[in-house]
Amino acid sequence: MNKTFAVPRGTSDILPDAIPLWEALESKARKICKSYGYREIRTPIYEDINLFKRSLGATSDVVHKQLLEMVSSKEEEGYALRPEGTASIVRSYLENSFDKKEPLSKFFYIGPMFRGERPQKGRLRQFHQIGVEAIGTDGASPFLDAEILTLVMHLLQEFHVQGPKLKINSLGSKEDKERISLWLRKEFTKHKNELCEDCQRRYEHNVFRVLDCKNEKCRKIVDSFVQDLPLSDISRGYFEAVQKALKEAGINFEIAPHLVRGLDYYTHTVFEITAEGLGSQDAVGAGGRYAGLLDDLGGNEKTEYGAIGFALGMERILLASGKAQEGPQTIDAFVIETQAEYQFRSFQLLSDLRKNGISATTNFSGGSMKSLMNQANKANARFALIIGDQEFKDETVSVKNMSTSQQETVALSGIIEIMKDKLK
Amino acid sequence: MNKTFAVPRGTSDILPDAIPLWEALESKARKICKSYGYREIRTPIYEDINLFKRSLGATSDVVHKQLLEMVSSKEEEGYALRPEGTASIVRSYLENSFDKKEPLSKFFYIGPMFRGERPQKGRLRQFHQIGVEAIGTDGASPFLDAEILTLVMHLLQEFHVQGPKLKINSLGSKEDKERISLWLRKEFTKHKNELCEDCQRRYEHNVFRVLDCKNEKCRKIVDSFVQDLPLSDISRGYFEAVQKALKEAGINFEIAPHLVRGLDYYTHTVFEITAEGLGSQDAVGAGGRYAGLLDDLGGNEKTEYGAIGFALGMERILLASGKAQEGPQTIDAFVIETQAEYQFRSFQLLSDLRKNGISATTNFSGGSMKSLMNQANKANARFALIIGDQEFKDETVSVKNMSTSQQETVALSGIIEIMKDKLK
Repeated sequence: MNKTFAVPRGTSDILPDAIPLWEALESKARKICKSYGYREIRTPIYEDINLFKRSLGATSDVVHKQLLEMVSSKEEEGYALRPEGTASIVRSYLENSFDKKEPLSKFFYIGPMFRGERPQKGRLRQFHQIGVEAIGTDGASPFLDAEILTLVMHLLQEFHVQGPKLKINSLGSKEDKERISLWLRKEFTKHKNELCEDCQRRYEHNVFRVLDCKNEKCRKIVDSFVQDLPLSDISRGYFEAVQKALKEAGINFEIAPHLVRGLDYYTHTVFEITAEGLGSQDAVGAGGRYAGLLDDLGGNEKTEYGAIGFALGMERILLASGKAQEGPQTIDAFVIETQAEYQFRSFQLLSDLRKNGISATTNFSGGSMKSLMNQANKANARFALIIGDQEFKDETVSVKNMSTSQQETVALSGIIEIMKDKLK
Repeated sequence: MNKTFAVPRGTSDILPDAIPLWEALESKARKICKSYGYREIRTPIYEDINLFKRSLGATSDVVHKQLLEMVSSKEEEGYALRPEGTASIVRSYLENSFDKKEPLSKFFYIGPMFRGERPQKGRLRQFHQIGVEAIGTDGASPFLDAEILTLVMHLLQEFHVQGPKLKINSLGSKEDKERISLWLRKEFTKHKNELCEDCQRRYEHNVFRVLDCKNEKCRKIVDSFVQDLPLSDISRGYFEAVQKALKEAGINFEIAPHLVRGLDYYTHTVFEITAEGLGSQDAVGAGGRYAGLLDDLGGNEKTEYGAIGFALGMERILLASGKAQEGPQTIDAFVIETQAEYQFRSFQLLSDLRKNGISATTNFSGGSMKSLMNQANKANARFALIIGDQEFKDETVSVKNMSTSQQETVALSGIIEIMKDKLK
């Protein structure tokens, strides 16, 4: 026997029975994002590896441990499968000069992302995200933050995510972040040996990450002196305007002073949404402001950009959506002929049905009436259309309603009209 | 200034203006494939590289020169981005034991494929396909070939592809292929030195490929002795039954005795569809039967499988569809406020519109009325909703029809009903 193959570790097939759930998610996302004036964009599955190094930070976990790289050739530098969507969209925004076309560009995307997680952890290497990015010279309004947060909560509601909770924080401006970073490092120095191993490293490279460490000891230290991040007055005013707009729009939220997010590029508003029933990995999505990324990726130095976005994990959403909302796929008609020589007739019937928008299928190799009826049932057919000896002779077809078992025989020439009527 | 990044060679961004064309293609494909009883399946972007080596043949051009490989780690064997869809779907079919669940499984897929074409040739490294595969113990009926060919022509018609032409051929059974291969090699021996360089190589590894060489000398030699492939009676009978079913279904086709397709796994029916206006690269899709692939990839030795499928190139289809059929994306409302302090009111209005399924957007940073009207125009807004001083005081909103320039002022409390009415 030949070797069999398995789906790569950390990836999975989405089989036909699961497709309706994914399709529903995608079509809802498209509809809602469009109704907020966001437009779909699709970037390639892989990018120049340096795009990710530059945007996510060369020392970040994603770049350091999780990029799935492609074999590079002599003539060309390396590529990596995209670990997230923001870097690619900022790259496309700048490359296609959207900043010269419109004051604010509002994008959304839906698609696979890739991280080389160690497979023994049971984490996914290919996963799927719905994401949104608003970028532009008009992008620094607190009402845009409120729009983005309203949109994310609207999406989760339409997806039937159970118990979604919005947590927000502000990291302040780039200057605030530097100042706060020095302050945090100074404070942590007193407790440096009590921090967990990871946080000892974070203390050096990205001290903000200590704030959301789950280790109990680290938490105690953080709680002891960080009630609020000491923002500048301008940054605080901006954050308060965001909160005010959210309240007016009736969006519930919670301030989470220790929320920082893993990626280096965030400034000002950051947020995370958790849901019920997901255990300890309860985030379904997150995002924040990232104006600095435009500069890092070669934006015009004289232009002041504003940018904010989020990404939702589709696998997580499906887990958090409770019971499947979509029924199984059905088909309008299953065509059956009782003799092989009637196949030309039944094939003609199939073609006619499909041309008229009536979904129809058949078995191609015959069998007993019982086995054929079983197959029609399995295919979730609403009607069985039967060509037996009498029907073949009379140019008729018997139409059986699969749920009521009622059956009638009608002229083949009128079958399309009759089926359209029955399917109404 | 920081380094800017470009989209990887041989790939491209699908920007928002082009999205409606792609969406239309995808939603038509989904609707039509479903109406034929085919169900969507999604396999990962990459697979075990050996899956492709085994299925496509280690000496094939695709495997030899065009696989985009991923960097492998010590613990795991290599992966490659999928160059086509069939191998992955057969892998999934066998891995998920579809052969034990149903006599015939009918799948379709839509998604990106990858080939490491040399970029100087201007060919795509990431391209997109719509494909269909029917696999099962009931898969060896000539009516299934006819169904697949009817489906492919139905899709191309709905896609408005100009002048689609279906060419079919039969390579016969595996045994036929071996016998024909010997015969061809014997015939070509007399002319071996006259064959082009590529065909000298093909003569050794896959002599069938000499039949569709475009080189004039090779063509002359082929034409001199191959009018028809010498099939066995059974294979010829099968091919004739396919043709008969196609004729009854009113599908035009042409027999192309030199059509062989590049992939090793095809037996019996093979086909290709060309379109007008594409120059020398005029194929929009192709496919064929490939029962042997099930055995190669570890199918049950005692089971007799039948399998047939095709793939359509989405980029080629868009090129061959003549003018864009889809208009630009519009938005129902563009909300304008004349003072920054009215933004809370306009944000509330935006939220209400969107909650009620009315698409709406705004500019977040104000500006002159003229510039705001320009932005509303650019966004293809159907209506501008304006909150000026008077409107703010009176709790009203002015509604301007952007195509007729007619304007009226209505109560804010009734705006949703009024907009719903106007948008009917």
